[in-house]
Amino acid sequence: MLLCDIGNTSLHFFDGDKEYKEDVEHFDSLSIQEDVFYICVNPKLREVLKLLKNWIDLSLYIEIDKYYDTMGIDRIMAVEALRDAVVVDAGSALTVDVVKDGKYEGGFIYPGVQAMSKTYSDISSALNYSFNFEVSLDKMPKNSQDAISYGYLKILYSEVISHNQEIILTGGDADKFASIFPTARIDKTLIFKGMKRIIKKANIC
Amino acid sequence: MLLCDIGNTSLHFFDGDKEYKEDVEHFDSLSIQEDVFYICVNPKLREVLKLLKNWIDLSLYIEIDKYYDTMGIDRIMAVEALRDAVVVDAGSALTVDVVKDGKYEGGFIYPGVQAMSKTYSDISSALNYSFNFEVSLDKMPKNSQDAISYGYLKILYSEVISHNQEIILTGGDADKFASIFPTARIDKTLIFKGMKRIIKKANIC
Repeated sequence: MLLCDIGNTSLHFFDGDKEYKEDVEHFDSLSIQEDVFYICVNPKLREVLKLLKNWIDLSLYIEIDKYYDTMGIDRIMAVEALRDAVVVDAGSALTVDVVKDGKYEGGFIYPGVQAMSKTYSDISSALNYSFNFEVSLDKMPKNSQDAISYGYLKILYSEVISHNQEIILTGGDADKFASIFPTARIDKTLIFKGMKRIIKKANIC
Repeated sequence: MLLCDIGNTSLHFFDGDKEYKEDVEHFDSLSIQEDVFYICVNPKLREVLKLLKNWIDLSLYIEIDKYYDTMGIDRIMAVEALRDAVVVDAGSALTVDVVKDGKYEGGFIYPGVQAMSKTYSDISSALNYSFNFEVSLDKMPKNSQDAISYGYLKILYSEVISHNQEIILTGGDADKFASIFPTARIDKTLIFKGMKRIIKKANIC
């Protein structure tokens, strides 16, 4: 079974064993003959894939009233993979979603590492530092690099741990946050697990 | 006594009675004959003002070892105005600084309203919302506008109130944060109060 999570710039495949990525720009959707179960946030590619019989859009099998209309399908799939957890998906945006007893409790959206770093350096060249992921979260900073690192990380940390639930890190930047959330579990294939669960529920494979 | 807080784009004057602003671009520093006590983060203008006898740079009168080298002089002046408080200065950056018994405890830097709003819309046009400053901070959001508003505001809120101190709001966007921090005091001339205190301490007026 081939699964695919399609973003704005890349297609992330998982064949049940290994994962790999392809560029949206150079991808030829006709090059794959087998069935592909996918989710897609790229509007242009979605229009193309709609026309292909072997590409099956899993967003059509979601109970959408459990979520909200404009919620990203990648966030929904991550939530579908879990019963009790806080999911931190660190990509271009960093989303935090809470699931309790299999029920979606809500979530919020924070800038991803790269976006937030750009924000600080755009405000002033004096704030052009990379984040210190080892910054002490126990005391207020007294240098510029820690002052922005704390601004980005500490207040995210406080909110995430306030839910007293297992923390799952996923997304391209998951590893960077491991030092901030030392008890968290990293699971880079979380979205694919959610997709598999939807496939099973909908009985389409 | 004329006070002036000089940023990258404007000069903010306070004559002890009223405050007013001038554009850095169109400002003629020779147009003022009286003494001006100033702080300045604009490197170009600072070079000019250094040469003028009646412009007195208050940064020279700071006990810098109470702070840290690269800390903005505007933050230092806000802190100098207080003995026990958390100062939230909401400008292009949003700085949070803590003073206890007149001692600087440290602080952090967060993006200002406009910068953070741009960050979200740059990540995706689907996140191009203005912040809802009335967002409920008690429960996790279930719509996109609240998901970014909560991301920006709730986690700032948690950190600021965790210090259990009086909260002072200052800076151009102070009013916007009044609904988030209902017990806070708004003081838009806080920096000028700090400047006056330095003038008095240094006995230069």
